[in-house]
Amino acid sequence: MCDTCHCAQDAQSGRAKKIIEVNQSLLAANNEKALANKKLFRDAGAVVINMISSPGAGKTTLLEHTIDRLAGEFTIGVIEGDIETERDAERIRAKGVAAVQITTGGACHLDAGLIHTGMHRLMEQGEGRFDLIFIENVGNLVCPASFYLGEDLRMVLLSVPEGSDKPAKYPAAFTSSRLYVVTKTDLLPYFDFSLTEAREEALRLNPELEILELAAPKGTGMSEWLDKLRALIAGAA
Amino acid sequence: MCDTCHCAQDAQSGRAKKIIEVNQSLLAANNEKALANKKLFRDAGAVVINMISSPGAGKTTLLEHTIDRLAGEFTIGVIEGDIETERDAERIRAKGVAAVQITTGGACHLDAGLIHTGMHRLMEQGEGRFDLIFIENVGNLVCPASFYLGEDLRMVLLSVPEGSDKPAKYPAAFTSSRLYVVTKTDLLPYFDFSLTEAREEALRLNPELEILELAAPKGTGMSEWLDKLRALIAGAA
Repeated sequence: MCDTCHCAQDAQSGRAKKIIEVNQSLLAANNEKALANKKLFRDAGAVVINMISSPGAGKTTLLEHTIDRLAGEFTIGVIEGDIETERDAERIRAKGVAAVQITTGGACHLDAGLIHTGMHRLMEQGEGRFDLIFIENVGNLVCPASFYLGEDLRMVLLSVPEGSDKPAKYPAAFTSSRLYVVTKTDLLPYFDFSLTEAREEALRLNPELEILELAAPKGTGMSEWLDKLRALIAGAA
Repeated sequence: MCDTCHCAQDAQSGRAKKIIEVNQSLLAANNEKALANKKLFRDAGAVVINMISSPGAGKTTLLEHTIDRLAGEFTIGVIEGDIETERDAERIRAKGVAAVQITTGGACHLDAGLIHTGMHRLMEQGEGRFDLIFIENVGNLVCPASFYLGEDLRMVLLSVPEGSDKPAKYPAAFTSSRLYVVTKTDLLPYFDFSLTEAREEALRLNPELEILELAAPKGTGMSEWLDKLRALIAGAA
């Protein structure tokens, strides 16, 4: 995480106190804003999901296929986070759904303040009411795990090409999430990826994790995913 | 990057001055240590390469195949960076090459201080002389780009499963590198990945980038890569 990384550097440089103070005040300010976001989300009637993964794990693709199947049933909104480019929001808007792009201009994660602004923009674009809002975080398996955005559910995605050894190497994303989705399972025949390792390592870190496995473009595992979303919206999960 | 991310947050929170000061002093301390590393690297006779990519882009796999082909020709050492686990260094040591694992304990990147300690440990393990040292950074396409470690060459790896739109989305890794390696090109038939887009977007950001494309386990593109390493060691690149 951004904050721990400064603390780690600090252990060598002797700047501990100052840096820890700045980090604590940053995280405290972030959490305060996240609670304000939570109220905004509730007022909009929305269940909010914060999606965390490496670049290219398939977040936007999963969203596209989810919207194709649920847009007739629910009002969906998307807040897209990227360092640069408007592309992901354009992909989502092409599906006829309200989408806001936040470009962080170098920052490695979204924070609650950026989401607050993004949520106000999303409200203007939509009709002010949403059943479901997805926040697609910056592609980064490290830093986004440290910033609570006010979401109802945090999910971590791991794609088969990344390798099944990743939960143990990047633990914070897995310990702080409630849902863990293995993506691109149609590629299992081409990779040395063990679903057992991918599951067991994550559960060792976080025994409460719910695990889904899917290949969105092929439709594999999508019904379990959509049922999970329906249950969340109904307040039953 | 870690530092910009704090600056970005700050624009909202009004903590600008304090945070920018801390960041500047961190980067200044890092650069000072990086210059000390450069001297250590020279004293060891080594060309040093800093490898940056997302998790699972194939850094360790490329190293394994590189060592298989060059270990008879050159003395190679590896400094592995991960948030947790000793696994990558174990994979490298299994090839009979000196390898040191640095676990950052949460930090999203390696810094020059960690490399300084790692280099001293590597010198103890090896015979104090190396032709070539690889630094495998933490899997993260964002934060490592901001920290100079004293390396001679920085390279960024992008794997086909991540998607050819990534250079524009994660520009710092591409603007700060001199070599750009597209990995897992044997997977091109299974992905909507445009080599033209992957090349042109990166060159738009950094016209000086040298680009190689390879699939290490299949041997594709390996001779160009090995020739590049030989030229670097000979001081001709």
